[in-house]
Amino acid sequence: MTQRSDQIRLGAFLMATGHHVAAWRHPGAKADAGADLEHYVAIARTAEDAGFDMVFLADSQGSMVDQEDPAASRFVSQVATFEPITLLSAIASRTSHIGLVATATTTYYEPYLLARLFASLDLLSGGRAGWNLVTSALRQEAQNFNLDHHPEPEARYARAEEFADVTKGLWQSWQDDAFPRDKASGVFFDPARIHPLNHRGAHFSVAGPLNVPRSTQGHPVVVQAGSSEPGRALAARTAEVIFTAHQTLESAQAFYADIKGRLPAFGRRAEDLRIMPGVFPVVGATEAEALEKYEELQSLILPEVALRFLASVFNRPELLEHPIDEPLPDWLEVDGRASRPALLLELARREGLTARELHLRVAGARGHWTIHGTAASIVDRLEAWFDGYGADGFNIMPPYLPGGLDDFVGHVVPELQRRGRFRKSYAGTTLREHLGLPYPTHPHHAIRAEAAE
Amino acid sequence: MTQRSDQIRLGAFLMATGHHVAAWRHPGAKADAGADLEHYVAIARTAEDAGFDMVFLADSQGSMVDQEDPAASRFVSQVATFEPITLLSAIASRTSHIGLVATATTTYYEPYLLARLFASLDLLSGGRAGWNLVTSALRQEAQNFNLDHHPEPEARYARAEEFADVTKGLWQSWQDDAFPRDKASGVFFDPARIHPLNHRGAHFSVAGPLNVPRSTQGHPVVVQAGSSEPGRALAARTAEVIFTAHQTLESAQAFYADIKGRLPAFGRRAEDLRIMPGVFPVVGATEAEALEKYEELQSLILPEVALRFLASVFNRPELLEHPIDEPLPDWLEVDGRASRPALLLELARREGLTARELHLRVAGARGHWTIHGTAASIVDRLEAWFDGYGADGFNIMPPYLPGGLDDFVGHVVPELQRRGRFRKSYAGTTLREHLGLPYPTHPHHAIRAEAAE
Repeated sequence: MTQRSDQIRLGAFLMATGHHVAAWRHPGAKADAGADLEHYVAIARTAEDAGFDMVFLADSQGSMVDQEDPAASRFVSQVATFEPITLLSAIASRTSHIGLVATATTTYYEPYLLARLFASLDLLSGGRAGWNLVTSALRQEAQNFNLDHHPEPEARYARAEEFADVTKGLWQSWQDDAFPRDKASGVFFDPARIHPLNHRGAHFSVAGPLNVPRSTQGHPVVVQAGSSEPGRALAARTAEVIFTAHQTLESAQAFYADIKGRLPAFGRRAEDLRIMPGVFPVVGATEAEALEKYEELQSLILPEVALRFLASVFNRPELLEHPIDEPLPDWLEVDGRASRPALLLELARREGLTARELHLRVAGARGHWTIHGTAASIVDRLEAWFDGYGADGFNIMPPYLPGGLDDFVGHVVPELQRRGRFRKSYAGTTLREHLGLPYPTHPHHAIRAEAAE
Repeated sequence: MTQRSDQIRLGAFLMATGHHVAAWRHPGAKADAGADLEHYVAIARTAEDAGFDMVFLADSQGSMVDQEDPAASRFVSQVATFEPITLLSAIASRTSHIGLVATATTTYYEPYLLARLFASLDLLSGGRAGWNLVTSALRQEAQNFNLDHHPEPEARYARAEEFADVTKGLWQSWQDDAFPRDKASGVFFDPARIHPLNHRGAHFSVAGPLNVPRSTQGHPVVVQAGSSEPGRALAARTAEVIFTAHQTLESAQAFYADIKGRLPAFGRRAEDLRIMPGVFPVVGATEAEALEKYEELQSLILPEVALRFLASVFNRPELLEHPIDEPLPDWLEVDGRASRPALLLELARREGLTARELHLRVAGARGHWTIHGTAASIVDRLEAWFDGYGADGFNIMPPYLPGGLDDFVGHVVPELQRRGRFRKSYAGTTLREHLGLPYPTHPHHAIRAEAAE
């Protein structure tokens, strides 16, 4: 392992009313936040004022409404909200430094469409965009794209591998100095500095060039969130940030070592990829106050929501009839390739949790690391994960908004800064600069790199 | 024809440095405007301060670079710029009233992706979005989407018909009052007020619902730009605004009468669809100054650019060898279905124009109506087209930016206002309100309409 910076990276993973499943019912939450641009602009600015590396938005190309039984979903707040690329574009023009990462699926986009949207977000934000590559998980998505069933993981990842290559190739279409724009001669671009892609592969034929010039960070940062084996393989080759879910330091360390260990095979260094587990933090002035805040949120969950959550995660409708205060049934098994259900079942079996207890344990963070405590005790744990090589930083998942982010920014960030582990102001202007990631020089003519460094 | 408002509608059709083919070489143009968000925000605000109904952006899913001979395109400024949906999203959060219309193709998008992007732009702008439906024209686009050749017009329009229906259906997924968001009971949405689409057609199977709620204008305004027969048929059934190109009032009147005459067959009224021809205006304090400004722009065109333009429009590379100061060759013919080449050839033959003269005539406006003069003489002509039922308004195509828009806003708009033909301030906040278009009530439960009107 090469020498590592001691600076912790922070993302703000924003969901309209917050990450807790009942966040929208919290007295401090704005129930219609998912349709309120000004709400998002305000919380992005809060994160920017605190020096966060980025805001991060999830996505799916379908609504979470249960198609057979819409009434079953009526307690769910994330059924309809903004599309993240447009939302981040709107936020881009009202912020100046913070990175802007949107999730988008390789399974239902075409690479030219997606490469363009992200390149444009990157250009208009002055080099602050990131693309969180996912292959989609909801059955509802398939049915919005001419399919009855979601493709199998192998097929999705085979497409994703080629999709990532095409997208990165399109982002190399124009060299950084391709546009002399010389009014006197009338020459707008230098034809020697274009690189059309002319890709012909199993899934895509894409000629290029992209019709968007490169941004000041070269191209968007590539983020990934899958922790399955094909997800890890793709991430080790192409990702620059990994967003991941771990309940324990041991699990995080094993993942961290595995991913970083795969990098040299692709000619990559450990510092070329940042691993950022999700953290769901509940901050109090005392440990007791933090616990009380956490339990207030938990008390807002309806029992029906808990059972529906488990039935959905494990894809077993029978769980709707399961007695909520008994352990999960013995017959429940999971497909080892789907990492989140496996993690939840293992947790429930290990600790003998009832259905209600399992749901309450993961309700807010959906399998991510949940911590409550004072700023000092939270920073102790973040430092332990960072210093123990379980993380390069964290994707912070505020329990509810804006209060949950305000608590973190008001108490945890200053404690991180006091200990010298987090920036007090931005040193650069691009997401790559914040994250300390290398500039993607052009493979054919690395002119900018030669001139600038 | 029913009683018509006497108010002229105005769109600002924005291209980075302006519409003239050599606009970027003008001393007053910012050559890198196509990569400068602040440039676009400033001109959108200029148009908003003047009370324009909307800004309008063109699009193609490919670069105008000649793939066989990139050097041949080196004088072209529109080879790489922002993607319009992301750009308008960024502009949305810095403006408050002006409509925001982006072009997007039904040939290479999937309807769920496109319906979502525009619904989200509509939501975050407070009901100001419009979608200009096109079926694409560039061969380069096909080659970015797994095809060797662009599909034939019949195939493109068959897909576009179904695409438009699916998109509008997805925009009806949620009733306006579908979200009680009741914290006490925990009910976020009312399952009786969702309308999944469950569409199964020749081109698309889309279950829905869309995962974006409706905006305050119901859904984006549907704009169309095709003037071919299948384009007219589709527009008469689905469009709410038509952007069109005419050189003469007679041509505009014939088009206007044809389109408005088709509406009753679809149960639509004349005022349900606004016809807005493009206008390329050069404004001067005197007629002589206007002509001088126009000729200054024309003088910036390189002869090679003129021949390449004609070779491209007519898809005949032999025109590159044609003597620029002779009339178009006798052998040149056009496919009657492609409306723009037919219009240009007819113009050249009618007036006996040389290749250079034809190009100079249409260079700036690419077949649209070019006028130069004082504010009063320009308004005379706009009024004549409006009062003669050739137009419900105009899509203004500034020759260069920002100067060409500043001239129009500073001189022509005040003259229109003085004559009582254009608003002095916005009466509403949505694009539909500006254009006087009906609110799209929900076909199943027109609750909002009943309650509000």
